[in-house]
Amino acid sequence: MPQVAIGIGDDAAILDLPPDHQLVATTDSIIDQVDFLADRHLAADIGFKAMAINLSDIAAMGGRPMAALVTLALPAIKATETAAAVYEGILEAAEKYQVAIAGGDLSVHDGPLSITITLLGQVPTGGAWLRSGAREGDCLIVSGPIGGSLQGRHLRPTPRLDLVAALRGEVEVHAAIDISDGFSLDLDRLCAASGVGAEVEPESIPIHPDAVARAQESGRTPLEHALGDGEDFELILALSPQDWKKFAARGRELGMVRVGQFIGRTGLWSREGRGLKRMLASGYIHGQRRDPTTAQASLQGTAAPAQPRTAVETEGQS
Amino acid sequence: MPQVAIGIGDDAAILDLPPDHQLVATTDSIIDQVDFLADRHLAADIGFKAMAINLSDIAAMGGRPMAALVTLALPAIKATETAAAVYEGILEAAEKYQVAIAGGDLSVHDGPLSITITLLGQVPTGGAWLRSGAREGDCLIVSGPIGGSLQGRHLRPTPRLDLVAALRGEVEVHAAIDISDGFSLDLDRLCAASGVGAEVEPESIPIHPDAVARAQESGRTPLEHALGDGEDFELILALSPQDWKKFAARGRELGMVRVGQFIGRTGLWSREGRGLKRMLASGYIHGQRRDPTTAQASLQGTAAPAQPRTAVETEGQS
Repeated sequence: MPQVAIGIGDDAAILDLPPDHQLVATTDSIIDQVDFLADRHLAADIGFKAMAINLSDIAAMGGRPMAALVTLALPAIKATETAAAVYEGILEAAEKYQVAIAGGDLSVHDGPLSITITLLGQVPTGGAWLRSGAREGDCLIVSGPIGGSLQGRHLRPTPRLDLVAALRGEVEVHAAIDISDGFSLDLDRLCAASGVGAEVEPESIPIHPDAVARAQESGRTPLEHALGDGEDFELILALSPQDWKKFAARGRELGMVRVGQFIGRTGLWSREGRGLKRMLASGYIHGQRRDPTTAQASLQGTAAPAQPRTAVETEGQS
Repeated sequence: MPQVAIGIGDDAAILDLPPDHQLVATTDSIIDQVDFLADRHLAADIGFKAMAINLSDIAAMGGRPMAALVTLALPAIKATETAAAVYEGILEAAEKYQVAIAGGDLSVHDGPLSITITLLGQVPTGGAWLRSGAREGDCLIVSGPIGGSLQGRHLRPTPRLDLVAALRGEVEVHAAIDISDGFSLDLDRLCAASGVGAEVEPESIPIHPDAVARAQESGRTPLEHALGDGEDFELILALSPQDWKKFAARGRELGMVRVGQFIGRTGLWSREGRGLKRMLASGYIHGQRRDPTTAQASLQGTAAPAQPRTAVETEGQS
């Protein structure tokens, strides 16, 4: 990993950033009983997932990952074995996505297994995919089939770094977010940051087979699972119609599907026949994870699934 | 903070690095009952300390801090109050040392209060102060009085970022490390990384008044406390004799004292009269904190003070 000039073994790591690039930095923590169940999930899966969710945030910014700092807090019982098993998954992800482990910290404590990873990446200066850049008229794209990730996919999520490589230089991505908490909830966040709304065509939503399987037991529809389940780690993207037209053929090969458009009117709307129905955001609410200053808001519940809510308001086509 | 182009609220933070600079990145975690005692220490002090120990690592690399990512894991009882109090100390340190809070994560868990901070900084390309650059004949410098930090100083350590600003451009620092685990232990690490040894003049060691106070109760000498107590967060530096001569007057104003020299023969040696005695490294051993791959080595004990050991071997002056 040539970009890590100095790695583990000094007081800090030294990393090189190419000229005309900015640093992308994100951190995400997963904890036993809050984000996973150590007695049910393989430690290697948990380690892989801790890397993957951070890599997904780098992908959502249009970034390329460079290095990770890994902090483990371990229960005393079988601490060494646990650390080794978790690391197996971390190193698997690091190798798969070409990330250097540049440092970290390790403690044994009287508490649950917890993994905190800081991921550092790079993005061409001014070229980050922010949440705030979607414009009225932009195509609303989702990068692959969604819903039902709890059937097992959520343990081995695929950060869509391949999309970053494919889209960079080809089209201008106006805005992006990764689906961690649910398509409609994350779309709502992107819309709020951009000051726009979105019109979703429900029949265009690519429903994952896992959502269908899950619907058979949940009493909810596959579409509800697709709209409200979290941990898909696909990307929601805003592209101009021109760019989408240009990229659509290649995009479809990558799993990208146009599922609607961004509109000037705020809120989420579902196209039903000739009308628009209000669509409420549904998904996992587990705190404003990237805004630690809003402590109060963030302390409400931990990974409790919000009830999916369907249309409550009907609107004639404008 | 102009260097943080995008802070909290997107999928990741975006930071600008000035041209011809490298990124410095470090992470350090502190946990209740392992690194502090939540029922005895003020939460604001704990927050401040979590920032300060990371800032000290940036200083030890000759870096300038830019931004912090802050992850808290909170016990459920009084989680909101604890988060607010810890943040008070974090923000105090952030303001004092001009660091932006660029992101983070917050969870409530069934475990002890834990604070993990990743600190990002910058250093002129090729100008990082590594542990590995000390040369035979270099002056061995300590940046201020040491020992007895447990009298209270350890809760509000002062990262020596002022030294970075004062030394940068004036002299060439060959090597540096911060004293987190004990002067002799951290000196030993620097020597090992550099492939040299050190000859320490015990009468030159600047002994902190806290070391004297502590010696009155511990049965150990003030010098033993100075050599073996941890959490001083002063720096150990290697400078050429020419550079030290040039800088000494200004250096002394900053607390810097020449306490010996680096020698070709490996090991730590104490000058006693006309002879050299072997000096064993003493200090806190709480795991190879920055090398998470050596899990096994790191799982031995947590913050248990090693017994100070004095000279066991005598060597005639060479």
